[in-house]
Amino acid sequence: MNHYPAPLISLINELAKLPGIGKKTAERLSMHILRMKQDNLNRLIAALHGIKNVEICGICFTLCDSGKCSFCSNTARDPSVICVVEKDSDMAAIEKSGAYKGLYHVLQGCLSPMDGIGPDEIRVSELIARVKKGGIREIILATNTNVEGEATASYLKMKLSGFPLNITRIASGVPMGGDIRYVDQVTLKRALESRHGI
Amino acid sequence: MNHYPAPLISLINELAKLPGIGKKTAERLSMHILRMKQDNLNRLIAALHGIKNVEICGICFTLCDSGKCSFCSNTARDPSVICVVEKDSDMAAIEKSGAYKGLYHVLQGCLSPMDGIGPDEIRVSELIARVKKGGIREIILATNTNVEGEATASYLKMKLSGFPLNITRIASGVPMGGDIRYVDQVTLKRALESRHGI
Repeated sequence: MNHYPAPLISLINELAKLPGIGKKTAERLSMHILRMKQDNLNRLIAALHGIKNVEICGICFTLCDSGKCSFCSNTARDPSVICVVEKDSDMAAIEKSGAYKGLYHVLQGCLSPMDGIGPDEIRVSELIARVKKGGIREIILATNTNVEGEATASYLKMKLSGFPLNITRIASGVPMGGDIRYVDQVTLKRALESRHGI
Repeated sequence: MNHYPAPLISLINELAKLPGIGKKTAERLSMHILRMKQDNLNRLIAALHGIKNVEICGICFTLCDSGKCSFCSNTARDPSVICVVEKDSDMAAIEKSGAYKGLYHVLQGCLSPMDGIGPDEIRVSELIARVKKGGIREIILATNTNVEGEATASYLKMKLSGFPLNITRIASGVPMGGDIRYVDQVTLKRALESRHGI
């Protein structure tokens, strides 16, 4: 790689710092970028500059481009339900499903003592403050169903149990279109426990 | 994805245009870039700007950051041998091997009639001009060993056969560390044909 000109080497190095991009991929991408039309390269650079304008909503902590996100400022959404997620991408996935019309609360992480992430590192106190303000009827805990996500949900359930509201957890079970024989035991156990009349 | 702020969506779109990067990967990368330190982001942007300064050597057509590449301007390298490669990355691979101390000629492609690439689209006439100038003792044809690369090598061999120089082709055979039973028939045939005394 020392045989490439210095600007190319520095681009390869910078790209290789991105997650999931090794030296080989960075080299391939750099070669592509090198041959990109000036217009397209400028558009990529402008998009990278633009990302600096992304802010975090002061209410629900999701990403937004002004002080208040499109959910919190949307009067058509039900302000009495809050769906608690770990990350913006979880929120995006729920939005894609089209099944939810309330507000969100992005924790920006989950409890993970192994990584030194406790309740103070994620947006728990802010959630409690929102609940204290009143007007909330239901809190849907939509953290991931892995160990950290389950622990976070339990912790939130404990913290919120003193308030007069419905605390729910998204259902676990066999994925739609799934094949029961390929579903893991824990999921199947949960699916059986949560069985319902049809 | 419509639920993300506009600057994030435009970064995702721009990244998804890069080869081998789909929407999901672009989303993941954008989320990482969003959380990158300002310094690191600026360094990435500077590297992208820097790539605009990469030029092509006027002699051997490899990438360089000034008018003449580090090979052509290096007096320690043997100017009487030219290794002809298709792309800069091939040149980089040969350099990594450390087995070559002559000059290069980057064709910037290979003959591929299917894609409309004929001798005029790659740097053939420039190679012949270099040979005509004299002082060249050997031309090593190091184009790829696929159909297009072989055709390009044959074409160059024909074009250069009138000149008083040695025209050689890199050897084909069983890769080092290779398992003979897994080597394809064509390679094995070539390896047997090119057998040599030990």
